[in-house]
Amino acid sequence: MGEQEARAEVRRIAEAARAASGALGQTTRAERDGALRAMAAALRAHAGDIVAANEVDMEAARAAGTKESLLDRLMLNVSRVDAMATALEELAELPDPLGLVQEARTLDNGIELSRVSVPLGVVAVVYEARPNVTADAAGICLKSGNAAVLRGGSMAAHSNQTIAEVLHDAAVAAGLPAGCIGLVASTDRAAADELMQLHGTIDVLIPRGGAGLIRHCVECSKVPVIETGTGNCHVYVHASADLEKARAIIVNAKCRRLGVCNAAETLLVDAAVAEAFLPAALAELAERGITLHADERAAAVAAAHGIATVPATEDDWATEYLAPDLAMHVVDGVDEAIEHVNRYGTKHSEAIVAEDAAACEAFLARVDAAAVYANVSTAFTDGGQFGLGAEIGISTQKLHARGPFALAALTSYKYVLRGSGQVRP
Amino acid sequence: MGEQEARAEVRRIAEAARAASGALGQTTRAERDGALRAMAAALRAHAGDIVAANEVDMEAARAAGTKESLLDRLMLNVSRVDAMATALEELAELPDPLGLVQEARTLDNGIELSRVSVPLGVVAVVYEARPNVTADAAGICLKSGNAAVLRGGSMAAHSNQTIAEVLHDAAVAAGLPAGCIGLVASTDRAAADELMQLHGTIDVLIPRGGAGLIRHCVECSKVPVIETGTGNCHVYVHASADLEKARAIIVNAKCRRLGVCNAAETLLVDAAVAEAFLPAALAELAERGITLHADERAAAVAAAHGIATVPATEDDWATEYLAPDLAMHVVDGVDEAIEHVNRYGTKHSEAIVAEDAAACEAFLARVDAAAVYANVSTAFTDGGQFGLGAEIGISTQKLHARGPFALAALTSYKYVLRGSGQVRP
Repeated sequence: MGEQEARAEVRRIAEAARAASGALGQTTRAERDGALRAMAAALRAHAGDIVAANEVDMEAARAAGTKESLLDRLMLNVSRVDAMATALEELAELPDPLGLVQEARTLDNGIELSRVSVPLGVVAVVYEARPNVTADAAGICLKSGNAAVLRGGSMAAHSNQTIAEVLHDAAVAAGLPAGCIGLVASTDRAAADELMQLHGTIDVLIPRGGAGLIRHCVECSKVPVIETGTGNCHVYVHASADLEKARAIIVNAKCRRLGVCNAAETLLVDAAVAEAFLPAALAELAERGITLHADERAAAVAAAHGIATVPATEDDWATEYLAPDLAMHVVDGVDEAIEHVNRYGTKHSEAIVAEDAAACEAFLARVDAAAVYANVSTAFTDGGQFGLGAEIGISTQKLHARGPFALAALTSYKYVLRGSGQVRP
Repeated sequence: MGEQEARAEVRRIAEAARAASGALGQTTRAERDGALRAMAAALRAHAGDIVAANEVDMEAARAAGTKESLLDRLMLNVSRVDAMATALEELAELPDPLGLVQEARTLDNGIELSRVSVPLGVVAVVYEARPNVTADAAGICLKSGNAAVLRGGSMAAHSNQTIAEVLHDAAVAAGLPAGCIGLVASTDRAAADELMQLHGTIDVLIPRGGAGLIRHCVECSKVPVIETGTGNCHVYVHASADLEKARAIIVNAKCRRLGVCNAAETLLVDAAVAEAFLPAALAELAERGITLHADERAAAVAAAHGIATVPATEDDWATEYLAPDLAMHVVDGVDEAIEHVNRYGTKHSEAIVAEDAAACEAFLARVDAAAVYANVSTAFTDGGQFGLGAEIGISTQKLHARGPFALAALTSYKYVLRGSGQVRP
């Protein structure tokens, strides 16, 4: 497909989604949830086709020398297809985000004013390797009454195409309007760029993927973007910290899962407790295979206890490793810690470990991040942990949605005013 | 000032605002409101300087042959400066939008989770002729704990500069951080373009002005924009309408103020009542000097009663006149009316006049607009009328803020989690 055809395809899909969005916004909860269940059943019924399409993608990826971890993300089998179906069924059970009366009052002039949640309209999701995002994103959009325009990665093109067709046909058979799920088949970069031009046709663009994808969307999109992702998170051990809690928290925040955005990437330690805290904590981290990037003071303490470190540079403070690496910086007091976090952090998840309440409150108030923690691991930044239901992503912007966001972030509201002939003086 | 200097100035001001925003976010309500009152007093104390600076702008504008209505927007006298001061004092009386606990609960693992409102950080406002917006925008930003980066129109450059200096100095004397209000002096287009590049330094950009300014911001800004403004609003008179209410509503919605975004621009009339409704209503509109742009059926009814019309074209359906003009279209039933509104409207304010409840509910549910009305004039779309306090604008986008928006739209939130050493399994 040439560039012009790719752009035309994107416009056609987006306009079909726009056309579908009106009727979709008028569906009942029962119709939407029924469609989700029908989509789940269709995934299971077509699991063989989906796995076969995935095998084509897997062959090509293997031939291209794709590394094992990416191949694992790409791979679908019957059990993974079943998990996608189950996720759609769980989505159907969640509360309806539409039609919620957020506010209602009668004005002095007798007008009854209410503010009611409504769908955004058309939601575009741009993502990378994992084909399960196709089902996940389509389901979340339909649950919230939005038409979905999906654009997956080239590596999963066959898988995504088959999944999207199965889902679309099942949704339409269940009574939802044609065009309610559209997958952009072209994996040409021009297709993604065209998507970002469609202000007025697409209401919001959500990139789900690496930092490069997200930055490209933020910089180039005329469609509003919900920025997700990058987490250069810190754990700060204050002079008053319970050192056993601090050790458990940094080990959990760093080691629980290395590749997630809520993982700790820098340990800040107060000079007053560096000697008391670091040896045992670093020994455990080192034993778990973490490379320690230490500033001079931290390196000196580590060396005195026979723990190997590598020198930290300015770059380390700003790096989201997503790897078995941890930067370490010794600071003098909570002010310096807060300053460091606000300077190098990505406004994602930031933790203090301290028994001193004033230090905790200073950190919680003054650190600018979506989630701030006192005596808790940063690993809790997650829609499920926060009780939000199906998480779409973790926003690091401040507009519209911040932190873990779910179905409510795919809604807007309208003011509805009912009267008896009122005119404004 | 050359283009490079203009861009450098913008970056300097934005970075100073960013630096100020940290401390500003930590101020108390009393400090912020005290600063607003000090700013009001300073405006009154420097009214002479402000009026003198304005006279320079007025001279230049007169010399450039600026039309009277624009000159009136630009003009400041002592009484208008006093009104600016009073507006700041009223702002100080409004509830604090910060520190609101939007949600609080204890998770099963004992973590206390809360969601608390916080400032966005740095808010940029780009506006046109009226110099009072300088005080208004600065006040709204500081009230909500945000640093303000202001960029006014070239016509009001001297007025804006003097007002901004008076406000900044008063705010700083009252204890707010230096740089909390920055006015971009350069009125070079490059300055505005630079502002739109500063993703990461500026958190949101609010254009207040004409459709051209707003479109330019939406298309070019990397900083998220709250889109305001264009209102191509409709009043639809259903077959079941109380025709006296309908007449009063269309006259109010069209004639109350011609230049506002909530003014009606198209009258849709059901064919069933065209003959009964139009003659009296059109006679009154014509008497008030409104030019009637009629489709064939409406023109025929008008002509039969000796009321002059001009032919409406497709362009009329999409036009926000902001002038003594009204388009008229006869439709067959509520479905056609809804379709017309959703096709040509700008998602601002839309009204149905009907006694039939089903017709009202169909219109309210299916019309996609920030404010939908049954038996009420569209003139009520206004922050004050909705009880929101100081209105910043009327958003026609769906993300973050929709319809009339006020201080709450200049806040975000953070999740605050307090625990006792919890780690995630």
